[in-house]
Amino acid sequence: MASSTSAAPIGLALLGAGNIGSAVVAAVQRAGERYAARVGAPLEVRRVLVRDTSKARPGLEPSQITDRIEDVLADEGASIVIEFMGGEEPARTYIEMALNSGRHVVTANKEVMAKHGAALLQLAYDRGVRLQYEASVGGGIPVIAPLSRDLLANEVTAVTAIINGTTNYMLTAMTQQGAGYEEVLAEAQRLGYAEPDPTADVEGIDAAYKIAVLCGLAFNVDVAPTEVDRRGISTITARDIAYAAQLGYVIKLLARARLVDGEIEATVRPTLVGASEPLAKVDGVLNAVQFEGDLVGRVMFEGPGAGQGPTASSILADVLDVAQDVAQGRKPLAFIPRRKLRVRPAEEHEARAYLRIGVLDQPGVLAAIATALGDEGVSISSVLQYESEYTGGDEGTAELVLTTHGAPGRAFAAALDVIRELDVVREIGNVLPMEG
Amino acid sequence: MASSTSAAPIGLALLGAGNIGSAVVAAVQRAGERYAARVGAPLEVRRVLVRDTSKARPGLEPSQITDRIEDVLADEGASIVIEFMGGEEPARTYIEMALNSGRHVVTANKEVMAKHGAALLQLAYDRGVRLQYEASVGGGIPVIAPLSRDLLANEVTAVTAIINGTTNYMLTAMTQQGAGYEEVLAEAQRLGYAEPDPTADVEGIDAAYKIAVLCGLAFNVDVAPTEVDRRGISTITARDIAYAAQLGYVIKLLARARLVDGEIEATVRPTLVGASEPLAKVDGVLNAVQFEGDLVGRVMFEGPGAGQGPTASSILADVLDVAQDVAQGRKPLAFIPRRKLRVRPAEEHEARAYLRIGVLDQPGVLAAIATALGDEGVSISSVLQYESEYTGGDEGTAELVLTTHGAPGRAFAAALDVIRELDVVREIGNVLPMEG
Repeated sequence: MASSTSAAPIGLALLGAGNIGSAVVAAVQRAGERYAARVGAPLEVRRVLVRDTSKARPGLEPSQITDRIEDVLADEGASIVIEFMGGEEPARTYIEMALNSGRHVVTANKEVMAKHGAALLQLAYDRGVRLQYEASVGGGIPVIAPLSRDLLANEVTAVTAIINGTTNYMLTAMTQQGAGYEEVLAEAQRLGYAEPDPTADVEGIDAAYKIAVLCGLAFNVDVAPTEVDRRGISTITARDIAYAAQLGYVIKLLARARLVDGEIEATVRPTLVGASEPLAKVDGVLNAVQFEGDLVGRVMFEGPGAGQGPTASSILADVLDVAQDVAQGRKPLAFIPRRKLRVRPAEEHEARAYLRIGVLDQPGVLAAIATALGDEGVSISSVLQYESEYTGGDEGTAELVLTTHGAPGRAFAAALDVIRELDVVREIGNVLPMEG
Repeated sequence: MASSTSAAPIGLALLGAGNIGSAVVAAVQRAGERYAARVGAPLEVRRVLVRDTSKARPGLEPSQITDRIEDVLADEGASIVIEFMGGEEPARTYIEMALNSGRHVVTANKEVMAKHGAALLQLAYDRGVRLQYEASVGGGIPVIAPLSRDLLANEVTAVTAIINGTTNYMLTAMTQQGAGYEEVLAEAQRLGYAEPDPTADVEGIDAAYKIAVLCGLAFNVDVAPTEVDRRGISTITARDIAYAAQLGYVIKLLARARLVDGEIEATVRPTLVGASEPLAKVDGVLNAVQFEGDLVGRVMFEGPGAGQGPTASSILADVLDVAQDVAQGRKPLAFIPRRKLRVRPAEEHEARAYLRIGVLDQPGVLAAIATALGDEGVSISSVLQYESEYTGGDEGTAELVLTTHGAPGRAFAAALDVIRELDVVREIGNVLPMEG
């Protein structure tokens, strides 16, 4: 067994010193002995890059604090750089500088990894160092490492994830309390689960970064966040959720990527999930990632998708893994260059759909709508018609809820263009994909 | 990037050639090119140890088959030995022989790892080779590797698992269909989910092996399977399940290990789990393992706990991981010797309890029982009393269902000794621990 007391310490440099940085520093101080025994050498926090050097930093000496990346990289004793600044720049530049200087990098940055992951991973391999990013997806849930290692024997065919805690909290609250979107958004903001500007969460931007990162690992394919077909939850109403429940479904914001006939489908969309599916039961701020592989079938990992402790847990897992390699002189594994597969546009995605349509309560309505769908090859799976009390009291109107069998996005779009113009149709209330 | 075509192949020897062995051979043949690219060298199945050499083995040449372990170990080209014979002997001896001969070993053997894991892991480290056992717990679900790596920064305080698919299938069927134990056992046997002799599953023996293995990793403590306080599901009735549901709980066979005040509690017991808990929602033959750590909080991994493909997925994850090290000359990580902590007997475990008691339907019954509990310091949390129709029609009798606050096992035992002797008590129907 390697002696942990005599070995030279492994130096850590931190880029960023917010909540998560503080949790990492505190854990290294608290559990230092246990970590040293595992690694074979003690860890030592050396330099910390901050925006404001005048602020007091618990557990750190003023001499450790700097606002210049050059000071950090000049410290020869720091072999692992941990980045939790967030955002694209200057984080990407600093990661690149650290890799170029021969430092291993551990990052929690989903945006940088989604947009620049392949290039940075190749750079790391060229420099003989490691770039680890477990904390960029799924907070404390192990996702990246299990996909890189534990499912490696599988041809992964699909990743389906609830990967944004804010929106899952909101949809769960709407489901359990029957509340509306605006009401639960205000509640989520009050509880600190949603930002004052909630756009990145509720519009699925955060989830799109994460599913792009997972595409790289699951399929070894480079998918840009802009190639993810993305839709947020702001159009979901309490009625959609109630209708879904009557049909035996739960509405979740699913981030999904599939390998279909050698092409990629990557989406972030509110989706009807069959109530008995494991993902349908993931409630509140929890996240979950489900993988489908040719050998294993389906496995799902569930846990806290954000927060100080969970994110520190993932960052430190990477740090300890890299530190073990450093202490024992193990070389990084090869980086297999990413494939570039065609990413299918939404019009080619085949899925079942849920349609909620406001109609005039008169004979022939269903026939007209069914004809429009049938003309595009979309066949109806179930129909529910609700009386006007469900639509808010307008007299002479009703709400028609249809579910369909699978059909391509373009068939739905064409049928909806026709349906929208029917005299008997007041509005297309919502159209959502269905799973299971 | 390492060239996978020019590198010398990495030889595999298989001990056992049943369903899972066949799946491993088929996957290596089918996905060989992808595996070679990841590993940096091709994998090659060399020798296969079988009981009956006269049987045809698809995908294998007769010259590869042997019934002598000596023939396997004489093959200098085989650097990784994969064991899926099952059972304690001769599997343990063969694993030891393989390690002593300088071979890396990948095993799916829960019994050997539960009883001899620490000694074999130490031997592997002494010989400079690896002993991997992902498939021994949780079938296709990554459990061992996430615990060894991804949660390493955490002080793990509890592992709570549904880790036997047979019993989870049976309890789920009882819950969803209201069926009795014997009925669902027969159904499970008919579907091939339960063995003709179901003892190892229904009495929790299989689960006890697995939780013992997890104790080694989660707490770095050696716990013998015999130290696990174990109880099976054969006493669970449809009424227990119905009462639990009325109380907001689901009955699951939980395998659980906790670190409490520097001591270990390890149990396998049918347990009332709060219906909103993630583990309560794991249904059918699925398995799930939940870890609690000081940083991450709770994470849960869910998936197929058995089966040919899932088990092959876990075995091959280990094989590919070891093969990468072999191809790239990476040394094994240090083995940290296990601690020996005291394992608490059940009488010291503190838990809430559910009690179902058959009583005479007359005044003073509840007072007598409450007094017996109170005298031992057990306080009652809720009481339900059911009329005699629920107890099978005996006139003048009723069924009392109590839940309690937390108390030590010895307090329950003492109170139950008193309650059993009360004139008004006909029988102690069931006593089960509660979670959440």
